[in-house]
Amino acid sequence: MAVYTEVTDADLRAFLARYDLGDILSFKGIAEGVENSNYLLQTDRGQYILTLYEKRVERNELPFFVNLMEHLASRGIPCPTPVHSRDGETLQELNDRPAAIITFLDGLWPRRIHPFHCRELGHHLAHLHLAGSDFAGHRRNRLSIDGWRNLLDACRARADEVFSGLGAELEEELQELEARWPDDLPSGIVHADLFPDNVFFRDEKLSGLIDFYFACNDFYAYDVAICMNAWCFEPDGAFNATKARLLLGAYRKVRPFSQPELDALPLMARGSALRFLLTRLYDWLNHPPGAFVDPKDPLEYWRKLRFHRDIPGPGAYGLEP
Amino acid sequence: MAVYTEVTDADLRAFLARYDLGDILSFKGIAEGVENSNYLLQTDRGQYILTLYEKRVERNELPFFVNLMEHLASRGIPCPTPVHSRDGETLQELNDRPAAIITFLDGLWPRRIHPFHCRELGHHLAHLHLAGSDFAGHRRNRLSIDGWRNLLDACRARADEVFSGLGAELEEELQELEARWPDDLPSGIVHADLFPDNVFFRDEKLSGLIDFYFACNDFYAYDVAICMNAWCFEPDGAFNATKARLLLGAYRKVRPFSQPELDALPLMARGSALRFLLTRLYDWLNHPPGAFVDPKDPLEYWRKLRFHRDIPGPGAYGLEP
Repeated sequence: MAVYTEVTDADLRAFLARYDLGDILSFKGIAEGVENSNYLLQTDRGQYILTLYEKRVERNELPFFVNLMEHLASRGIPCPTPVHSRDGETLQELNDRPAAIITFLDGLWPRRIHPFHCRELGHHLAHLHLAGSDFAGHRRNRLSIDGWRNLLDACRARADEVFSGLGAELEEELQELEARWPDDLPSGIVHADLFPDNVFFRDEKLSGLIDFYFACNDFYAYDVAICMNAWCFEPDGAFNATKARLLLGAYRKVRPFSQPELDALPLMARGSALRFLLTRLYDWLNHPPGAFVDPKDPLEYWRKLRFHRDIPGPGAYGLEP
Repeated sequence: MAVYTEVTDADLRAFLARYDLGDILSFKGIAEGVENSNYLLQTDRGQYILTLYEKRVERNELPFFVNLMEHLASRGIPCPTPVHSRDGETLQELNDRPAAIITFLDGLWPRRIHPFHCRELGHHLAHLHLAGSDFAGHRRNRLSIDGWRNLLDACRARADEVFSGLGAELEEELQELEARWPDDLPSGIVHADLFPDNVFFRDEKLSGLIDFYFACNDFYAYDVAICMNAWCFEPDGAFNATKARLLLGAYRKVRPFSQPELDALPLMARGSALRFLLTRLYDWLNHPPGAFVDPKDPLEYWRKLRFHRDIPGPGAYGLEP
């Protein structure tokens, strides 16, 4: 559930006067997205999303995100593209917050994942990686392996509140990942948060990729592993190898995996599982009692981590080598 | 902030198959409305609101609300009209909840009230009252004077937690209203909750009246008084007689007040202030600590009540008799 900054009519009209978007028809807060305030803005020219960036997004990183969306959209990726104001800007101020207007994408995000969703996702994820390869911006992934160490240190003393032994298990896992994490896999711009609520479909076709506010430079295989964790486990916790095979198979048809990438996939999947486990654990241990957002279950990702630790190799993902 | 019932794609598609609305383009939860889950539904035929009725709305009252919207819309009132399914129904089931699709209205609700808003509101409120006069349904106002007694009894013991003496003051006020509340003013269908967030404007013209889920049979002058309290006080608590004059003046041009209605206006305004004071007080005393919705300040309406109690007569509203 989003934080909301209330925008007055007068402020909205003054803001929109900087753009060439015609008359306002409606303006409604959207109950999606946790980090920012998002509004659906309809004018007589079309539909847009107006985003007010709240505190959790760092102001000096906004040009990276906005320029990346523009770059990817210009390369044919179905992602929002920022609308330029009359004076050429894509970032403005509204209610003392940075604000941008981006294009609206049709489609619904899938509440239940079917195999065809995974095939479409793999195809578009590979195109996203290719399209980002000539993007000039660079952003370090603060939620990669050194970020996990910081998170674990912050949670270590209280991790056993979830269950006895969790802290030690996470310490052991992180030490192994620190020892084995590669530094030379193919890398570039990754989305890093491509969960189902960030992917829209119309009928059986992917129609939109949204929410680029975790995008950064990292291993492509790590982005693939994030998707595998987010899309290829059933609600009961079971891994669905058919979905993984379709996701990875569609990906490699567009951007083939190198052998080191293939070999590293289980390790990438463990790292990705640990990353979401740690951020959820942190939120679970630290959420204020009256918060809008219910913390997500950290154990969902603990189970995923265990799965990837216990498999013999990437063949368990339904891949032919 | 609304309660959200998550609707799966498959359930949504099965639900929409009962309607002749074309293909779904998008479906987004709207962060408005507290009682129900509201979604903005876009299809290739147009835009609609899909509402899932949550527990606080009584199921057996839904036909009254839905039929009333249809009746009023057919009389030219700018309110949503329910969409009929292929088999002619306006109420269906979705996710084990009653559900309806209604038409989408353009416009923005005013975050800051200007005098022209009040003039438009008065004009349309009078037309709403006239248009409802031949509506066949009937619904008692459970939040009229006997409902206030129940609310005060539920709050009486703890009212002084707000400030010392509030309980006794409310008891005295309610006793006076019980003694003086009329039973013969012109009455019919009233909206009963026409706050600014339920009224849309395009430019300076009223474009929509929404949220009929408190509509009921009551005195027309009581509905006018609710609007006066909601629209004619400034954020600092000061009564704006210019706004009241425009609201009442535009109203009476369409539906003239009888002399007893005019005389009763201050009493109606006190009753209306007490009604919102009591529901806010009840929510303030009883909201769970982790609730989504911050309780509204009950004292805002205590100050309005005092204003109406202290004026010499309806002339204070800027009216000529």
